[in-house]
Amino acid sequence: MNKAAIYHRPESEYAYLYTADELRLRIRTAKNDIQSISVIAGDPYNWQNGTWQKSANVVMKKTLVTETHQYWQASLTAPFNRLNYGFILTDSLGDSIFYGDQGFETLTSSSNDDNSLMGANNYFKMPYFQEIDRFKAPEWVKKTVWYQIFPERFANGDTSNDPSGTLPWRSGDHPTAESFYGGDLKGIINHLDHFSQLGINGLYLTPIFKAPTNHKYDTQDYFEIDPHFGTKEDFKLLVERAHAAGIRVMLDAVFNHIGDQSPQWQDVIANGRQSKYADWFHIHDFPVRYTPTDNFEYTADANYDTFAFTPHMPKLNTANPEVQDYLIDIATYWIKEFDIDGWRLDVANEVDHHFWKKFRRATTAIKPDIYILGEIWTSAQSWLQGDEFSAVMNYAFTGSIVDFFAKQQISPSQMVHKLNAQLMLNRDQTNQVMFNLLDSHDAPRILTVAHNNKTIVKQMYTFMFLQQGTPDIYYGSEYAMSGQQDPDNRRPMVWQSDQQDATMYDFLKQLIQLRHDYQTVLSEGTLSWETDDNKNIVGFTRQLGQTKIFAIFNAGNTNYEIPTSIDISHIISEQLYNNHIIQPNGFLVTISNQ
Amino acid sequence: MNKAAIYHRPESEYAYLYTADELRLRIRTAKNDIQSISVIAGDPYNWQNGTWQKSANVVMKKTLVTETHQYWQASLTAPFNRLNYGFILTDSLGDSIFYGDQGFETLTSSSNDDNSLMGANNYFKMPYFQEIDRFKAPEWVKKTVWYQIFPERFANGDTSNDPSGTLPWRSGDHPTAESFYGGDLKGIINHLDHFSQLGINGLYLTPIFKAPTNHKYDTQDYFEIDPHFGTKEDFKLLVERAHAAGIRVMLDAVFNHIGDQSPQWQDVIANGRQSKYADWFHIHDFPVRYTPTDNFEYTADANYDTFAFTPHMPKLNTANPEVQDYLIDIATYWIKEFDIDGWRLDVANEVDHHFWKKFRRATTAIKPDIYILGEIWTSAQSWLQGDEFSAVMNYAFTGSIVDFFAKQQISPSQMVHKLNAQLMLNRDQTNQVMFNLLDSHDAPRILTVAHNNKTIVKQMYTFMFLQQGTPDIYYGSEYAMSGQQDPDNRRPMVWQSDQQDATMYDFLKQLIQLRHDYQTVLSEGTLSWETDDNKNIVGFTRQLGQTKIFAIFNAGNTNYEIPTSIDISHIISEQLYNNHIIQPNGFLVTISNQ
Repeated sequence: MNKAAIYHRPESEYAYLYTADELRLRIRTAKNDIQSISVIAGDPYNWQNGTWQKSANVVMKKTLVTETHQYWQASLTAPFNRLNYGFILTDSLGDSIFYGDQGFETLTSSSNDDNSLMGANNYFKMPYFQEIDRFKAPEWVKKTVWYQIFPERFANGDTSNDPSGTLPWRSGDHPTAESFYGGDLKGIINHLDHFSQLGINGLYLTPIFKAPTNHKYDTQDYFEIDPHFGTKEDFKLLVERAHAAGIRVMLDAVFNHIGDQSPQWQDVIANGRQSKYADWFHIHDFPVRYTPTDNFEYTADANYDTFAFTPHMPKLNTANPEVQDYLIDIATYWIKEFDIDGWRLDVANEVDHHFWKKFRRATTAIKPDIYILGEIWTSAQSWLQGDEFSAVMNYAFTGSIVDFFAKQQISPSQMVHKLNAQLMLNRDQTNQVMFNLLDSHDAPRILTVAHNNKTIVKQMYTFMFLQQGTPDIYYGSEYAMSGQQDPDNRRPMVWQSDQQDATMYDFLKQLIQLRHDYQTVLSEGTLSWETDDNKNIVGFTRQLGQTKIFAIFNAGNTNYEIPTSIDISHIISEQLYNNHIIQPNGFLVTISNQ
Repeated sequence: MNKAAIYHRPESEYAYLYTADELRLRIRTAKNDIQSISVIAGDPYNWQNGTWQKSANVVMKKTLVTETHQYWQASLTAPFNRLNYGFILTDSLGDSIFYGDQGFETLTSSSNDDNSLMGANNYFKMPYFQEIDRFKAPEWVKKTVWYQIFPERFANGDTSNDPSGTLPWRSGDHPTAESFYGGDLKGIINHLDHFSQLGINGLYLTPIFKAPTNHKYDTQDYFEIDPHFGTKEDFKLLVERAHAAGIRVMLDAVFNHIGDQSPQWQDVIANGRQSKYADWFHIHDFPVRYTPTDNFEYTADANYDTFAFTPHMPKLNTANPEVQDYLIDIATYWIKEFDIDGWRLDVANEVDHHFWKKFRRATTAIKPDIYILGEIWTSAQSWLQGDEFSAVMNYAFTGSIVDFFAKQQISPSQMVHKLNAQLMLNRDQTNQVMFNLLDSHDAPRILTVAHNNKTIVKQMYTFMFLQQGTPDIYYGSEYAMSGQQDPDNRRPMVWQSDQQDATMYDFLKQLIQLRHDYQTVLSEGTLSWETDDNKNIVGFTRQLGQTKIFAIFNAGNTNYEIPTSIDISHIISEQLYNNHIIQPNGFLVTISNQ
């Protein structure tokens, strides 16, 4: 038995309340090592005649597999809302061992008895089922299909507010970092029908507050809509009309740093150490300065902390209570006054946990089911414990899908192992609201990543829409827009119908409908994988109750013949030949109610 | 290479700020598997010509070993207060592998290059060195030697406040659960010199608030001193005089439940569902009731949640903001009005995290270096992340020491492995303030556990005082009091000098002085073990800079001859023969400045 590989952590993604009454337990073991695991559990105070009473013996189920590990899961309830629990693991040779809070013991060892110093002291504890500590995902997010808008490039609804030097709206253009095209809030309002027709019911807008650049991540005033984007009345109308159409609205909070044109930073420049904002930043000495170079974005000699090495974005000192109050006022203002439904948090991992906990308390106090979405590109466990974010932008998920389908760098089983490893970092209810995406304003457009192969793009969207998380589409992807890394991924939206890819639109519309029709099973259903590394085939089944969704994808170079055992009624497919042969880049989705 | 055994978790006890500028990293591997580990690190934004710049390559040191694992540690700093890091592990065959946020990779694999989708995407991150999130242990606690008082049994300083039926003060008595002996606050005040002479500089008092029982864990009024214990003036005087003598004072907060004699519960009994306190508890239906039985403590049919199965202690609903405010008013009142230095939190793990976070914010706001000590008998990681407790009562540590020295149930290496496993659950600064104890009002007295063998008791105290945590003595242990489990462990303090064990007193006084003299090395120094399972010998070295403390304990049945290589100057010892032979139950402590 590979004892060193066994891991469990109480009160974490390995032991958590899924509902108020259901404790979900996980444990991980080395792959192909353990044959069976039972959970022994009981009320911690249920002693009779000096002996602790174990009341449950639950067989764990094998769930997901990674490169190195097998994960197992069990669900428990507790009549008095509290449990002691431990694991009995049996390996393939039939040897069994007890694993608990104080480590391993033989099944007959004395400290596993009930009369040691602490009594039943080698059991993990779920001391009380605390509903207030439970990770609660906003229910509506599971039902949402998102659409990300970069407002300067989506639509120009009001040419009167265009910045000087605004370029003509040409969707084929390659924007520079300094280009302006005149996109604005009215442009979004004018196209609300577009979202409804497509099936979109959640909009994520990159920053709309007053800021000099086209991307507006260098905020000048968090309480003002950028005048080139419109007015507060425009934004109020946008939210009202979106809500009337059943569409939620999420804004982008850039709280890690502020623009150097903000009055706060300008005051620091003017007044130095005497500025009342001197402690709003991380300033090493006064006066503040940096050395402009040809490539000024990457100079490392500013004497204050910045976002990346960008002197124009001084980092905010979010440990300063004044800064906290300022930012939380902003966060609550746009909820209270404009009824927004979510905050996407820029560079979220570089802001302290203390602040995000305060942020969650303040925002959920006025809107309990607000979606708090962190921009974190790596594993994000420490922000996803229930008292900070609802979810993060799932770039780790994106990476594995792209590496398999588009770059063909990893095998089907490697992709599955990586996706499974990510899923096992989070509680089930967290995975159900993770923000799944293929691209964004920060990544090359997925069609470009896929070397302009639209069938591969359809594979990836289909794959993503059938996973647990809430799927997102970057503006223009419904018409198959392309673009390299920033700024080329921010081209003006293609509105001329002769330049729009109607086939991709129809495909995505169908996929979105599928997601809505089968949202419950796709959010909450079990997941089991099938892979064929030789043929480059990946398939999976999602199941909840009677409903079963099966999907299979051919990423290989040869035709793949579907086994006759697969029910091929009720299909969505691409590159399907003769109803049972999936050609390269093809796929098939079947749905059955057993 | 046993890849399945490798574990690291960002932003946890595996990756934390030790000081504002020092990031400590840990990783664990299977024992005897890995030969060397390097940390590769660099600023996440330091890109040059499209390549991410790694700037550090730090060799990790082997630290502690458990039954199954080898732990490794490294310290890093970062010029811009942020780091990407990953591990290169080399096994005994010379095979190397990279381990990062997205799992394992060969050293030449493409996604370990810098031009993948996310760029350097397989590195763990310490996104920013957030001082506000750092686990901060109160510095004074490291310098403290604690003394636990059960006030009803320590000393009777005022017979006028004795309850009716108070028994005569006889230290040999075996109290029942209902006995009263008249101990009070004046009794403690009268004996402050006793603590100073012994070297004690921290007092922990079990509950002193108004309550019917002798132990007072069934609080009736949290804002009143129990009249049998004295008055608020008495308590004010106690704290003032203690502080004047350099002694800190910690009280016991029983916030999980309240006594059934409290006005809140009485109101629920009187007014049922209409009581304004109806939501202060977890009541399943009205009217509240339970079935008294002969053994009423363990009836399970109360129709409300209780502490254990004790209907006289209804559990408080700490998710109710009114209850939160009430309890936090109490916590801050005794700090503001009486200047107490710490709160010991009873049944701490059964109260929700949300509440304890609020508790920490409120108490540290008025006393930043308050010691918040949870009563948790199992591993307590989820309370020790920096935003809840400072430490927990270290019963897991007690258990291993007792099982080895007193019960002879485990071998030296088993004890060491268990202690190491506990140490590796926490950050180094947490371990330095863990509340180490051999017994308490909740456990049999250590002399009784040791079958009245005082030399073994001295071994255990010496062993404990030389560990990282802050040591505690239960009242009367300085005079070698004995007692079985509760209530026998709560006998009246022995004040008659002819019944006091002067040898034990002198020994503990010497040990306390040693702890004070070498506190820095004992708190912060490295720890390395030596064990001989055949001879039942355990030894260890604590080292910091030039100072080195070496201790060796003979738990076997035969004499143990000290290798001549050990410097035996400057010793404390028991059962040492001819200056180099440690007899059974003996030990030796040497101190050297190299």
